[in-house]
Parts: sequence; C-alpha cells; structure tokens
Amino acid sequence: MKKLTHVDESGHARMVDVGSKPDTHRVAVACGKVCMKPETLALIRQNALAKGDALGTARIAGILAAKRTAELIPLCHPLALTHIAVDFEWVEGEATADNACVKIITTVETMGKTGVEMEALTATCVAALTIYDMGKAVDRGMSITDIRLLEKRGGKSGEWKAES
Amino acid sequence: MKKLTHVDESGHARMVDVGSKPDTHRVAVACGKVCMKPETLALIRQNALAKGDALGTARIAGILAAKRTAELIPLCHPLALTHIAVDFEWVEGEATADNACVKIITTVETMGKTGVEMEALTATCVAALTIYDMGKAVDRGMSITDIRLLEKRGGKSGEWKAES
Amino acid sequence: MKKLTHVDESGHARMVDVGSKPDTHRVAVACGKVCMKPETLALIRQNALAKGDALGTARIAGILAAKRTAELIPLCHPLALTHIAVDFEWVEGEATADNACVKIITTVETMGKTGVEMEALTATCVAALTIYDMGKAVDRGMSITDIRLLEKRGGKSGEWKAES
Amino acid sequence: MKKLTHVDESGHARMVDVGSKPDTHRVAVACGKVCMKPETLALIRQNALAKGDALGTARIAGILAAKRTAELIPLCHPLALTHIAVDFEWVEGEATADNACVKIITTVETMGKTGVEMEALTATCVAALTIYDMGKAVDRGMSITDIRLLEKRGGKSGEWKAES
Amino acid sequence: MKKLTHVDESGHARMVDVGSKPDTHRVAVACGKVCMKPETLALIRQNALAKGDALGTARIAGILAAKRTAELIPLCHPLALTHIAVDFEWVEGEATADNACVKIITTVETMGKTGVEMEALTATCVAALTIYDMGKAVDRGMSITDIRLLEKRGGKSGEWKAES
Amino acid sequence: MKKLTHVDESGHARMVDVGSKPDTHRVAVACGKVCMKPETLALIRQNALAKGDALGTARIAGILAAKRTAELIPLCHPLALTHIAVDFEWVEGEATADNACVKIITTVETMGKTGVEMEALTATCVAALTIYDMGKAVDRGMSITDIRLLEKRGGKSGEWKAES
Repeated sequence: MKKLTHVDESGHARMVDVGSKPDTHRVAVACGKVCMKPETLALIRQNALAKGDALGTARIAGILAAKRTAELIPLCHPLALTHIAVDFEWVEGEATADNACVKIITTVETMGKTGVEMEALTATCVAALTIYDMGKAVDRGMSITDIRLLEKRGGKSGEWKAES
Repeated sequence: MKKLTHVDESGHARMVDVGSKPDTHRVAVACGKVCMKPETLALIRQNALAKGDALGTARIAGILAAKRTAELIPLCHPLALTHIAVDFEWVEGEATADNACVKIITTVETMGKTGVEMEALTATCVAALTIYDMGKAVDRGMSITDIRLLEKRGGKSGEWKAES
Repeated sequence: MKKLTHVDESGHARMVDVGSKPDTHRVAVACGKVCMKPETLALIRQNALAKGDALGTARIAGILAAKRTAELIPLCHPLALTHIAVDFEWVEGEATADNACVKIITTVETMGKTGVEMEALTATCVAALTIYDMGKAVDRGMSITDIRLLEKRGGKSGEWKAES
Repeated sequence: MKKLTHVDESGHARMVDVGSKPDTHRVAVACGKVCMKPETLALIRQNALAKGDALGTARIAGILAAKRTAELIPLCHPLALTHIAVDFEWVEGEATADNACVKIITTVETMGKTGVEMEALTATCVAALTIYDMGKAVDRGMSITDIRLLEKRGGKSGEWKAES
Repeated sequence: MKKLTHVDESGHARMVDVGSKPDTHRVAVACGKVCMKPETLALIRQNALAKGDALGTARIAGILAAKRTAELIPLCHPLALTHIAVDFEWVEGEATADNACVKIITTVETMGKTGVEMEALTATCVAALTIYDMGKAVDRGMSITDIRLLEKRGGKSGEWKAES
Repeated sequence: MKKLTHVDESGHARMVDVGSKPDTHRVAVACGKVCMKPETLALIRQNALAKGDALGTARIAGILAAKRTAELIPLCHPLALTHIAVDFEWVEGEATADNACVKIITTVETMGKTGVEMEALTATCVAALTIYDMGKAVDRGMSITDIRLLEKRGGKSGEWKAES
C-alpha cells in the first residue's frame, strides 16, 4: 500500500492529549433550571407525583450520569471522580408563573489531569431530564433552561467563575 | 418472617405498567439552544475549533444518547427506536450577542407502547453538552437553554404541540 | 482453508434460539433479604444513614439494573420490559437479632418471547447490594440472602410458584 | 431568583468525598452460594447443562460485573481495578440435599482512595445470577444465599475479617 | 429567532427511518480469522494460555457484544436479538505458518424491521479481539483478518450470499 | 460446609494482577483496513453515502469504543486513557480493485499499570465496523482485514514494533 495520503485533517474530532499534565485537585460547579407550571412544582414539593419522588430520583440519575460522562460526550477523558453532589433549590413561598422552577446545583471533584466541567454539566442535564420525566404526565410544557458552568478550580487555567 | 409490613409507598418511584397498551407509531420532536459568544459561533460555522467538528460530533453523540435513554432516566421504558434525526439551525448572517446560538432540533420515532419524548429530549441535551465540550476551551460561559418538547404524536393521548 | 474442524461443542455456552416463540405476557416475581444488625435496620427505618436514603436509592438501582440484565447475564435475551416494581418489607415492631432484615420483592413484566425471571432476580440482587453499600460504613457484616424466584407466569411452561 | 431555599437535605443520597484520601492498596474478598437440587449440581459438575458451561460463563460475567460496579451501585466511586478473580468450590463427593451448593469466592484489588468491597460483592452476585440462568431450565427453585464480605484490607479502617 | 437556516445537510449522519418496515425473521452469518504463530495456536488448542480459556472467553465476549451493537455503531437500530451463536474452527492436524488461524463463525437472528449484519460482524470482531487479548503475552504479532458477511436472509432485499 | 474442593483451575480465565506495576507512560498504535469496491470508496471520498459522513462517524465510534474496551474484552483492565486519535489513509489517485481500501491508524496513550494495545485494536475494529455500516447498503461484500498492532511503548516489556 504505497503512496498513502492522510485524509485531510482540518476539522477532525480529536481527544486532546492530556498525558503530560499533572494530577491536580479539580472542582466544577454547574447549575440549571427546570421551569414548569406552579401546580407541577407544588406536586413535586409535596412529593405527590404519580410516578413518585421526583427529586430523589433525579439526584440518583444525576450522580450516575456524572460517572458515565466519558461514554456520552465523545471527546471527554475518563476520570475517576472522587465526589459528586446534586442539590435542589426553589423560591420560598407559593409558586407562581414567574418562579415555578426547580434549580439544580451540581458539584463534581476529582484528582486528575483534566477538568470536570462536563461531568457537572452532564449530571445537571440528566437530573433535569429526570424531573421532566417524573412530571411530564401532568405538564408536557416544562422546559430545561440556563444549564451553565458556575465555577471551576484546579489545573493550569486555574480558577474561573461565571459572571453573575 | 411473619407480620411483614409494606414500607409506606407514598412518593415511591415506580416504572409505570404499559403492558396493556397497544404498539402504535410514536413521534416526538424536541428542541434546545446553546448560546455562546459570537466568535465561538463563528468558529463552529467555519469548523475551526481546535477539538474538531462540533456539529458532526454532537449529532453522533445525540443519536447514541437517544438509544441509551432508558439507561439514563430511571423510570423510562426501553424502546426499539426506528428513527433518530438531530439537526442544527442558526440565524443567517453575522452572529451578534443577541443571536449567537446553535439551535438543535431532534426527531425520534418508534412503534411502541409508550412515547419517545424523553428520547428526543435526551438526544437534544447530549448534543448540546457535546457542543459545549467542543467549544469550552474558548468559551466557558456558554449556556444550554430552552430544551423543551415541540410536538408529540401517537398513543392514547394523541397529538400535542407546544404553544409558540 | 480446507478440512476445517468444528471445535468440539460439548459444554459450550449458547444463547438459546427463541425466534419461533410467540410474544406473550410474561411476569416474574423474585424476592431476597438483606440481614443486618438491629441498629442498622433502625437507621434505615429512620432514614438516618450518613450516605442517605437507603431504600429510595436501592429502588432506583434495582429498576435500572432490571433494564440492563442482558448486558450483565451473558446468555439472557434483550427484552423490552413494560413494568418494573421494587418493594421493601420488614417485620413490624422493634428489630432484634432474629428479624433484622429488609425484604425485597421485585416484579417485572414484558410482552415477549422469553421469561423475565433473570430481570426480577437481577433487580433484587442490585437493590440488595445498594442497601449494603448505603449501610456498610456502620455494618460490614450484613449478608444478602434467600434471593429466589417466587412466581412466574406466561410462556409455554406456564405458571410456576415456589414452594413455601 | 432571590430567596432560594435549599431543599431539606436530611436523608439525601450523596457520593462521599474521598478526594483527600491517599491511594493505597485495597483488597476485598467476598463469597456467596447458589443452592440447588443435587441433580442440578451434578449437571454443572459434568458440564452437561443444555445452555453450556455454567462456571466458565459465570466467571466471565462476574469479572465483567466487577468492572461495572460504579454504574450499578449509585453511590460507588469509579475505581481502576488491578486484579479480579472469581473462583468456585463445592463439597467433595456426591451431592445431597444438604450440600448441593456452588460456593463462589471473589477477590478484587485496586490502588485507590476507597475500598473494593462493593466490587467483590457485585462480582459474586452476578456470577451467582449467571449460574441460576444457566441452570434455570432444569431447576427454577435454586436460591442465591449468604452473599457477604469475608475480608477487607487497606485504607484508614485497615483490616476487617468476618466472624466465622 | 427568525430567519433560521438549516445547516447544510449534505454528508450528515442520519439513522435511517425503518418505522414502516414489517417485522420479519432476519438472519446474518459473518466470519473472520485470527492468524498467529503455530505455537500460539497449539497453546489455544490445548487450553494452555496463562490467561486461561481463550475460546470460551471469546465466545462469551462475542455474544455480549452482539447485544451491544447499537451502542457501539452509531447509526445501528436497537434490535431484540432472538439467537446468537459464536463458533470456532481450525484446520485439522498440526498448525504450520500457513494455517495457524482460528476461524470465527457467528450467526445472529431477530424478528425485526432491519437486518442483523452489524450484530454478526460486531460479535465476530469482539471475539477476535478477545482471542488476541488472551494470547498477546506470547504473540503480539497476531492479526485479525477477513472479517466479512457470509450470508443474510430476511427483509425486502431478501437473501444475499458472499461469493466464495 | 466442610471438605470444600477448589474447582480445578487449569484453563480458567483470570484478570492478571497488575497492582505492583508502576504507572508509566504507555502508547500503542494499531492499524487495519476496510476493503471495498472502487465505487464505494469513491462515494466515501466524496462524502456521498446516503447514510452520511462515513469517516467522521467512524472516528467518533472508534474514540468512544477505545474508552469502553474494558467492558467489551473480559480480561482487560480499566484504564484512564489520556489520548486517542483515529486517522484514515487511502492510496492517492483513482481507486481500483487492487487498492480500494480505507486504512485506519489508531493511537492510544495512558499513564497506567498496563498497556493499551487492546484499546488501540478495539478502536480500529469499531471504526472499521462503522465504515462497513455506513456503506453496506451499496456494498455488502466489504471486508475488514489486517487489524494488527504496529507498535507499543512503555512498561516492563518496553518497545515493540511489528515487522514490516
């Protein structure tokens, strides 16, 4: 097989070489929201959805998804995560059309050669999808929104915080 | 083991019994957006990101994720999907701070006993996460937003369309 | 490549051909127990373990595992499960050395060509393992015991019930 | 989104932070039994089951399952296992109703921040489930029993051995 | 978001819509070879490799891989396989440099809307990779070769046989 | 359970203990070919296959498969890969019956206790299978051939290169 030509490589996906980076402590915090009807949020807060405990199920789904990030996101490096937390917040008091959201906040940590932003964002998305799934029988119009990185620490690029 | 008590079941997660439902043709269409800096969108449109082809990689990631929805979302039923398409749109002309988004539109179909909303939403989220991953070296502040169901057809509840 | 000899096939693993069997409604019920110290059971009943909600987590883990049975058990056929329920029981009143067990009862159903015994047993085992994991910091001596099929219905072999 | 309230966290599942623990050599040994009719055990010992080699298949299934523990058990940390062995024992001589069991003994090792008890127990359970699957056509009443940790070494809590 | 432009679709990956195809009985047979030193083949035939039973392990790996084809090959449809067999052949008599190969023959069947060629080819490749893994300590120069479809039956395109 | 006999262990699969090996930089390069009709290669080179971009899809599939090697190959150790590249070559000029092949070259790296040969070979096979899948509608007779290790570096056995 003589005279082989490398297929033109511009634009080709590649998994970046991180082999020469040191193992350092990495943290990423991501957040997102699931917006819904006030009645749906009320059912979630009372744990009264027919499919069961929305937030407990979403928390487990998010934690499991963080661990499978490298299977889902093609160019992510596999990392041995050391900590995953998925938490939920809402506005106190009665839900109204303007504040009927569950906010999701996810923290992921590792000792590794590359950051865990994708793990935190993936956990947040899958937790949000699970909340949708638990409530969709009563509210198909829910939306998942504002999924973004809040903060990262560790590695060569150091600390990064989202502008508020 | 006498006098067993069922643990109180209120609020417990359960995978709904769909065994008595007929197999019908089901379609779901979902959409979402990844918002970014205009410069980042320009790089994606020119296929000039260092990590490679963002949309091609996101499309494959979304298609693969649709097929793994029942592994990710705890109470989803496994379904033999017959069609998955992940498409992208953007506003024509130059990207500005107000329109620097990639829109993702996902269609999933099956012949089955339950709908494919979660499959369409999951593919959309994972495609969005992949776009974030491809571009995060130049734009950590990107956000994934407005992930929602546009339309579903098939099954007892029939057709549903999102209000525009 | 002449004179090929089939490698001797006695004892070789094979996935049985079920292609000519009709799709029928299949049900399997399995059960098992996790035995522990009375103090550990008390912590589970009060949802006071440091790692969090043992039974809620075990229920989700069991449901997810049922869907992945064909990936774990080499010769199991993949099946589109239509119903999965994982429930827990314990003896009423104070836990003592003789009755400090959580009993797990799992029901799985499908419309398919082969039974769902393995799915019900796998969900039971993984729910039991999860309870162990949640409580192991306080009780490494817990044991998982009496995992067995209680009942199956559907298919050519019809109904089967365990002797009590 | 002002005045956000953290959802009450008592009882919530969390993946413990092990980031500050050193990597040390960890070993766990677990065991379990599959009890069956004497005739079934005779078929396994002669490698004469219709589905094929029960123990060879169970060994592979157990080894593969150990590597997937963190996908199955929600709060387990992913670990790079360095050694997995799944072995089988039975009572010498003719099988009788009292001794018709296959005993499974699994050893798992890693260099890591947390122990491998769950990996050893998971491999044992999946090997046991596979033996059930291979033999269920002739013996649906088999039971999986006495799955427990025998021994662990390494880490801050040091050595632990089951009471005999 | 007005004036959206569909990203140009030429060359974009898509999972073909098979929803309107009937479920029919599908069969695919694939084959392949692992070529090695005569001494390596002798060790395999005597089951004397240090890592253990090469063919038994390869058979299980191939069967499991067939069931995961849709996870590995991006545009494959998920299918409920009804039969998987992985068999091995070699030339009778002493192995020489010219005939030191293990031949793998894989048969996969389903009742479904699309063929199972990819499942048969994937099982063959993973069985071949497993044989390589079992023997690589003694023979790193082994090659996997002539992986191809031998025959397919069922579906609109009907029967196809490889030219010999 | 007295007088237990270890099942005879000759020929039993075992995952080799690598716990005492140091973490070193490991590289493996593997290659393989997909041979096809000249017309099929022409369609791939023009990115004109109906299913879409064959090489872009195969590259992603190969990268993802490298990360899942330990799930597919039973006795492989899980490794945190630090670099994966999948590249393609073909003979310049017009394709003829003699040179109508896509050559795949895969490089995998890690810092770990054991080599990454299987990861490089697995990525190569899955990329090849994906090319087959993309083109099979026009060319069922394609074959996957000459999958082999080209080079490995790192670890106790040091450097190895295939004879040309």
